[in-house]
Amino acid sequence: MNIEQLRADTPAVAQLIHFNNAGAALMPQPVIATMTRHIQLEATLGGYEAAGQQAAELENVYSAIGRLINARPDEIAVIENATRAWDMAFYSLPLKTGDVVLTSTTEYAGNYIPYLQLKHKRGIEIRIIPNDEQGQVSLSALKDMLEDDRVALISLPVIATNGGPVQPVEQIGALARAAGVLFLLDACQGVGQMPIDVKKIGCHMLAATSRKYLRGPRGMGFLYVESALCQNLEPAFLDLHAASLLTADAYRIRADARRFENWECNVAAKLGLGAAVEYALAQGIEPMWQRIQQLAGYLRGQLAQIPGITPCDLGLQQSGIVTFTHQDSSAEQVQQWLAGQEKRINVSTSTVRSTLLDMQNRGLLEVSRASVHAYNTEAEIDTMIAALRRLPNA
Amino acid sequence: MNIEQLRADTPAVAQLIHFNNAGAALMPQPVIATMTRHIQLEATLGGYEAAGQQAAELENVYSAIGRLINARPDEIAVIENATRAWDMAFYSLPLKTGDVVLTSTTEYAGNYIPYLQLKHKRGIEIRIIPNDEQGQVSLSALKDMLEDDRVALISLPVIATNGGPVQPVEQIGALARAAGVLFLLDACQGVGQMPIDVKKIGCHMLAATSRKYLRGPRGMGFLYVESALCQNLEPAFLDLHAASLLTADAYRIRADARRFENWECNVAAKLGLGAAVEYALAQGIEPMWQRIQQLAGYLRGQLAQIPGITPCDLGLQQSGIVTFTHQDSSAEQVQQWLAGQEKRINVSTSTVRSTLLDMQNRGLLEVSRASVHAYNTEAEIDTMIAALRRLPNA
Repeated sequence: MNIEQLRADTPAVAQLIHFNNAGAALMPQPVIATMTRHIQLEATLGGYEAAGQQAAELENVYSAIGRLINARPDEIAVIENATRAWDMAFYSLPLKTGDVVLTSTTEYAGNYIPYLQLKHKRGIEIRIIPNDEQGQVSLSALKDMLEDDRVALISLPVIATNGGPVQPVEQIGALARAAGVLFLLDACQGVGQMPIDVKKIGCHMLAATSRKYLRGPRGMGFLYVESALCQNLEPAFLDLHAASLLTADAYRIRADARRFENWECNVAAKLGLGAAVEYALAQGIEPMWQRIQQLAGYLRGQLAQIPGITPCDLGLQQSGIVTFTHQDSSAEQVQQWLAGQEKRINVSTSTVRSTLLDMQNRGLLEVSRASVHAYNTEAEIDTMIAALRRLPNA
Repeated sequence: MNIEQLRADTPAVAQLIHFNNAGAALMPQPVIATMTRHIQLEATLGGYEAAGQQAAELENVYSAIGRLINARPDEIAVIENATRAWDMAFYSLPLKTGDVVLTSTTEYAGNYIPYLQLKHKRGIEIRIIPNDEQGQVSLSALKDMLEDDRVALISLPVIATNGGPVQPVEQIGALARAAGVLFLLDACQGVGQMPIDVKKIGCHMLAATSRKYLRGPRGMGFLYVESALCQNLEPAFLDLHAASLLTADAYRIRADARRFENWECNVAAKLGLGAAVEYALAQGIEPMWQRIQQLAGYLRGQLAQIPGITPCDLGLQQSGIVTFTHQDSSAEQVQQWLAGQEKRINVSTSTVRSTLLDMQNRGLLEVSRASVHAYNTEAEIDTMIAALRRLPNA
């Protein structure tokens, strides 16, 4: 990896230390340039006219995403954000009374609420897959749970918003396929951070965001739906992009995954997502993943040496999202303290509100979250560690 | 109106003539500057950190929209685009078998398809309000239709995508209120073009876009939901912004209209929408509406004098969207011809695909659409008229 080049493409690293890549990473110059160029083109030509001129680039967004996750372009929908991408998949599933959804303790509350909504509205049942000793989904427990014919869906995140394990998604996918159960993967924290290959994983649907490890713009995401499944799923919302009106009584839904899109989008951000994917592919996902794990391992080791700090991540395989608690300071105080350093250090706070089941299981109300990316350095980590050692009351 | 200033704020008018304001208008400089500034701030500070710094400006987007349409800030949701804003309102309504939805012949096919979807899925019934002699919704027919207790919703656009009448929305709203029937107004082509006052109109819900007459960015829109109704509508999609997870079995949906939003948005575009609303308010909506009508009237008069061209707009009151057919040229040919002029002229094409009922009623397959805004001029119209007179085969 050419770290110098990565950092040269990210001028803000001269002014700050950004460890909030799991919130929104710093965009590299090619992404910023793509977006600002397109906004200028819109101002110069008109919004539709500019999109027309960029038609080939807009198509390339689909093929770039396809290359990133090993899918066909017609299996990709580019959607306003990962929440709505996930929603369009989940709420389009024909789940009915008695159907069982399996999820992990690490599920994001923003996905869990929709399960509850359909539990209350349609009578589906939610079951939580227990963890094994390492804190990741227990594959043997999952196998047993799949014996029940009522299981209709496995839905979980590859990496939780508050760190923890990288779930064994390839094994989960194999069990789902063997049982004939749909598998919806929330890859928000995975895409751009680690290799994500939908064929190897065997997931039927995958939702992801642009703004996190992919380093793309905010307000953009995508959905993968396996082509064999796509045509059997009627989107929960339809419009004149997803479908055509044939007569006053009939419409036809388009065949490809764009049936989950709608007519309008922020074209500059869509092109920015494409640029971010191309940038990530050019760096190489595998070397980035190696570096991210190495930096995160170094950070966890350093944190463990600070009196009063407890690293919190579980799991056999861990990601770039590093979480910890401080015995005398709230996560908010840690965040403010680091943000107030001479060289601003961005970390974030993850509370029980975001991952209720996991945090309650572990007796945690909140954690500090420092999420590292390949453009970060050991020296930045050292600077944060030194600042944490100077924490008042530490 | 200070037309010189409007044009100075829109530098592209030196290079082209933009009559595609009903597609996406040219953004004024304050909107472009707001967006590019925020993207730079994100690149400098981080995505969430930049949003945090702009928290007050982000709140102001709601109050600005409130001032624009005479609503309270807590009755506004800022949503990815008008399609999803409308969807979040429509699909959240508890429509059930036998419920009747009333719409106009001018309804956009993108809204009509959702009616059909719920007709097929839930057994609702769609009824079309007939037009009066002027081509607008017949108020007496509507009154009669509202006698039926099964009518649950009136849903229609104030101005159709293919021009035609400005619907008498205040009278429609009064009839809806008198009958105790919900009224969902699609104001995509109205907001920014004409005064839209939700209290005067009496609509319960209103969806609108940023990119058309408001001159805001693409990929942004908003939804108004009357506060008394809001708390009784459970959004079709929920997440961790719309609701909080209280326990493993309970969530609480937030009280205000932001229950129809979700966690993530394109912050730069949201701020751009705010800037567009402030810009429109500073110009004055009423004088803009007067000027747009005057320009559109002038354009219709000039078009009518060109042999082979037939202006198509109906209605007692007409908008800035001017449509016409040409006896020897397709709408696509007209669009290409005008785009190819020395000073590029942007018009668009509206087909039966977008407004099936209206176009079929009038025996039209397509129309050319020239939509004028307050920053356009009579001289620009003269240039287009001269170009149309030179159309090959004209």
